[in-house]
Amino acid sequence: MSFDRLIAKIIETGNPTVVGLDPKLDYVPEFIKKKAFEEKGADLKGAAKAILEFNKAIIDEIYDIVPAIKPQAAYYEMYGWQGVKTLYKTIEYAQSKGMFVMVDGKRNDIGATMEAYTNAYLGSTEVNGVKFEGFGADALTVNGYLGTDGIAPLTKVCAENDKGIFVLVKTSNKSSGELQDRILDDGKTIYNTMGEMCEEWGKDTIGKYGYSAVGAVVGATYPEQLAEMRAKLPHTFFLVPGYGAQGGGAEGVAKAFDEKGLGAIVNSSRAVMTAYKKEGCDEKDFAKAARRECIRMREDITSFVTALNTKHQ
Amino acid sequence: MSFDRLIAKIIETGNPTVVGLDPKLDYVPEFIKKKAFEEKGADLKGAAKAILEFNKAIIDEIYDIVPAIKPQAAYYEMYGWQGVKTLYKTIEYAQSKGMFVMVDGKRNDIGATMEAYTNAYLGSTEVNGVKFEGFGADALTVNGYLGTDGIAPLTKVCAENDKGIFVLVKTSNKSSGELQDRILDDGKTIYNTMGEMCEEWGKDTIGKYGYSAVGAVVGATYPEQLAEMRAKLPHTFFLVPGYGAQGGGAEGVAKAFDEKGLGAIVNSSRAVMTAYKKEGCDEKDFAKAARRECIRMREDITSFVTALNTKHQ
Repeated sequence: MSFDRLIAKIIETGNPTVVGLDPKLDYVPEFIKKKAFEEKGADLKGAAKAILEFNKAIIDEIYDIVPAIKPQAAYYEMYGWQGVKTLYKTIEYAQSKGMFVMVDGKRNDIGATMEAYTNAYLGSTEVNGVKFEGFGADALTVNGYLGTDGIAPLTKVCAENDKGIFVLVKTSNKSSGELQDRILDDGKTIYNTMGEMCEEWGKDTIGKYGYSAVGAVVGATYPEQLAEMRAKLPHTFFLVPGYGAQGGGAEGVAKAFDEKGLGAIVNSSRAVMTAYKKEGCDEKDFAKAARRECIRMREDITSFVTALNTKHQ
Repeated sequence: MSFDRLIAKIIETGNPTVVGLDPKLDYVPEFIKKKAFEEKGADLKGAAKAILEFNKAIIDEIYDIVPAIKPQAAYYEMYGWQGVKTLYKTIEYAQSKGMFVMVDGKRNDIGATMEAYTNAYLGSTEVNGVKFEGFGADALTVNGYLGTDGIAPLTKVCAENDKGIFVLVKTSNKSSGELQDRILDDGKTIYNTMGEMCEEWGKDTIGKYGYSAVGAVVGATYPEQLAEMRAKLPHTFFLVPGYGAQGGGAEGVAKAFDEKGLGAIVNSSRAVMTAYKKEGCDEKDFAKAARRECIRMREDITSFVTALNTKHQ
């Protein structure tokens, strides 16, 4: 239970970052697309094949230096069920290389339906007396707007299967404040209230590093709120989106970490996947360029998170 | 744009209800499972096949008297990508019979990622210059916790492609009040605030019946809030879950409707899918039992929504 497995991987690699695999077809080099379209057709099936090859090549280049990937479900669902099959195969491949996989699905529902999502992503589904994993990820992002009925089914499975969830608390987007920053009648913001609910939901799943199985999403674009939440939620592990492309800098991101250099993992998606375009290198070098960007990001962030910054120096 | 197509179907059938196709394998009669497992294997593939056959048989029996189906994504995702393929095929089949299909996915994200979800469910995805529909549904449920950044990509596609969304406002579950009923510093509840955001998000997409393309989910289990929201949100069409199994009665549900008997559609899932078990009829009659339950539900609800209650009498 808890995020012990993820935290152990972060310590092992000395790298508190996760690569968001949100593969638009535009990011995939032409030579991969050409081959996939020839094999499978220039349609959703071909696109799904191209994206799988792109993902696998990046995973091959980064699995030894990056602890985790975070595939965003939307970018697979847009290619239909064929894309969802690629999501499954990406998860399977990354785990075969020892990576921790968090599906960014922001799922939310109640009771039996939330159990179905839980079984889909973190547990298993029984067919004719045999259990099968739908997607078999290690963690899932979820939205807590529906309250405890939407979270309880998850914490049970997390405890049983050594998995974790990240609840949206303060998202990285510009309009996140429209609702999340509003003040309730007790003087607390909505994101504060959601954060407190995370501590409550996670209280029985605290692991050896002091963090529970119920993490929170807190955006890199709001460093003040990151610092506030880090202080107020001592057992809640943070997933921090918004670094880089969305404008969050390493100095601000550092506020998500505790005094041991733990407590958070920072996501980067586009900058890693499109590093070859930014570098202007041969497109055949896209995966090596992704690796170079991962190292650059690790150095940038760990230069501000000094407690963790020892192993790879 | 707007929910004109759905409302026209409701008027045509004289039936403001939607069948939630949330097919647990337990609901599927043995003879269908046996055949599917023999053909495809007793695994996720076989389960997905069994569920598709179950769905199609129910659709065949109800498409002339029920305007819409609402497949819940979680119950397909729990059977992996194979289950998601069944979701796609269920949508396609229901539409081929003229039904309006709303995917209950409660999706939520920001910017480009929300665009990806939008393309997946309501728009299309370009591959090599050709557009393909990932799932091609008519409407999608979404969660507005992330603010306007999470909704704007949807309203654009809804207007262009004549589709709609339902935003979670007041959900039907017991703990929905933990967050949604909390009072903000202006004295309004969170669900009230979310409801007002729906009116704002939808204001440029109002159709000929007076309703916009941005609907709201308001649970049948909270009739007072249904009445309050109906009065306050004149252009917001309601999707009302929680009737029957969750305890919402027809008299309470009637408060979701306007004086013309329009403005809402009421969902029933389990009672329709498992009608044959409740009736105790031969399991081969499951689809006809589902039809009987749909008629019973229509009569129950329209007996309180008298303005609409003319056509099928």
